[in-house]
Amino acid sequence: MSKKLVFGHKNPDTDTICSAISYAELRTALGEDIEAVRLGELNSETAFVLDYFQVKTPRLVTTVAGEVAEVALVDHNESQQSVDDLKEVTITAVVDHHRIANFETSDPLYYRAEPVGCTATILLKMFHENKLEPTKTTAGLMVSAIISDTLLFQSPTSTEEDKAAAEYLAKIADLDLDTYGLDMLKAGADVSSKTVAELLLDAKEFNINNQKIEIAQINVVDVQDVLARQEEVEAVINKAIEAKGLALYLFVITDILKNDSVGLALGTETAKVEQAYNVKLENHLAPLKDVVSRKKQVVPVLTKIFEA
Amino acid sequence: MSKKLVFGHKNPDTDTICSAISYAELRTALGEDIEAVRLGELNSETAFVLDYFQVKTPRLVTTVAGEVAEVALVDHNESQQSVDDLKEVTITAVVDHHRIANFETSDPLYYRAEPVGCTATILLKMFHENKLEPTKTTAGLMVSAIISDTLLFQSPTSTEEDKAAAEYLAKIADLDLDTYGLDMLKAGADVSSKTVAELLLDAKEFNINNQKIEIAQINVVDVQDVLARQEEVEAVINKAIEAKGLALYLFVITDILKNDSVGLALGTETAKVEQAYNVKLENHLAPLKDVVSRKKQVVPVLTKIFEA
Repeated sequence: MSKKLVFGHKNPDTDTICSAISYAELRTALGEDIEAVRLGELNSETAFVLDYFQVKTPRLVTTVAGEVAEVALVDHNESQQSVDDLKEVTITAVVDHHRIANFETSDPLYYRAEPVGCTATILLKMFHENKLEPTKTTAGLMVSAIISDTLLFQSPTSTEEDKAAAEYLAKIADLDLDTYGLDMLKAGADVSSKTVAELLLDAKEFNINNQKIEIAQINVVDVQDVLARQEEVEAVINKAIEAKGLALYLFVITDILKNDSVGLALGTETAKVEQAYNVKLENHLAPLKDVVSRKKQVVPVLTKIFEA
Repeated sequence: MSKKLVFGHKNPDTDTICSAISYAELRTALGEDIEAVRLGELNSETAFVLDYFQVKTPRLVTTVAGEVAEVALVDHNESQQSVDDLKEVTITAVVDHHRIANFETSDPLYYRAEPVGCTATILLKMFHENKLEPTKTTAGLMVSAIISDTLLFQSPTSTEEDKAAAEYLAKIADLDLDTYGLDMLKAGADVSSKTVAELLLDAKEFNINNQKIEIAQINVVDVQDVLARQEEVEAVINKAIEAKGLALYLFVITDILKNDSVGLALGTETAKVEQAYNVKLENHLAPLKDVVSRKKQVVPVLTKIFEA
């Protein structure tokens, strides 16, 4: 059987990296030749996780068709969030927990999506359906992915299944969920050493009704740490708007202790944000009350407004 | 919890009807209020199956938004094959074994696709993952769906999983697979009492590279039974081409004993069929050697040619 690659989305986060590694472990155990790779630089939270569990950082790739004919996707499906030459390879499997859009295949495939908080929660089921268990190290990566995506179960995307999976995995990994979880989230939320580009690292592009919008998010312990650099941040965002022809760039700055966000909106369609959250932007900023999930509280809300 | 509907594709076949009923049984057992419905008339094979197991024919619907807010799809995902007002409801679950195309949601959902021969094979796994078993009657419907979609395991879409699932279900249903299977396939393949419209009942529309193509298929024990009525068939096909603006209509007449087909192609793009199968159409007809599966041997092949 020829070699395959598995990867998560561009601007990788902890779920994307850890789920790619975990899924590769599962399919390797099932006899396949598959390597987990990444499409971008690690964020500081994910770097903390891989360092903690002493796991090698997956290889960085920008294209895949030169080395494989078949790929598997984790934690995403929308083509604009994936590898640039996705159209030149066959997608044989997807494991994801997002909406489905801008995704098309010419052949049947394995597609497993569930409306849970984290890809790793689904992967744990798939290990069990195949009568396998993740190794201690991989269990540590999977529990990290769940903590990250659910903000330690505080996000509205978090489900009972995520919590049960995390508790199960924490036992295998021999971790105290709360202690490790807070350490990990704080490692990601420490913005002091980050460049402006790094503040905007977790950005995803969406095509809605033929308009391009980009939504970036950062988790912090104090939104002022980011807002103190608003001018520099806006300069980088405005460059992205121009380069990609975006109608809207929304930067969601999430306070992981208060479970609240501030939105910074630029582009020609910022009125859509005001309409979506019934707020008035002042100096491009508005509070996004109780918003912590891009997937559940931003993308569907903006989709409906852009499609109206 | 408010009521939901579950249905398969337009121009329903045995898998679409039986999997809708089976999935409704599974989710009802899990505490949901869900009804299996159908989007079109039963073919003679499916009518044989429901009669054999004394199961009530699901209610016919043409729209769904008037009665429910949420739906589940089985055995299809492409919007043009689904209910007309699909855009007005939320799709919360899909169980399917086809390629993914023309499918988009604004929210995360449960999506379960596997590259196996039949939706019912996946449903059996889902019963077991929920620690449930189908009832004797539902096991009969599920095994009928597998026999139908795999042509009693002769189709190239048939996998070891389909065979194992069918054998497992046949035990619950207390059926002899070969005897029942041939009786059922012959009931579907008897074209003598069919109108021309009924010969073309199993038709699916595809949008490829902004061109509309329709691919119909019929299983027979002698292709001459259909070709004897070629003139009438072509009249109906030409009307469909005009009414829907189709670039190609391909009618695949499959001999279930010889495991071979004859293709009848009409429209402006019939040269694509010649190119795909390296044949020359004569009187709009060409042999399609070893072709028995629309999903595996027709749709991907034509997709590649239309996108080239």
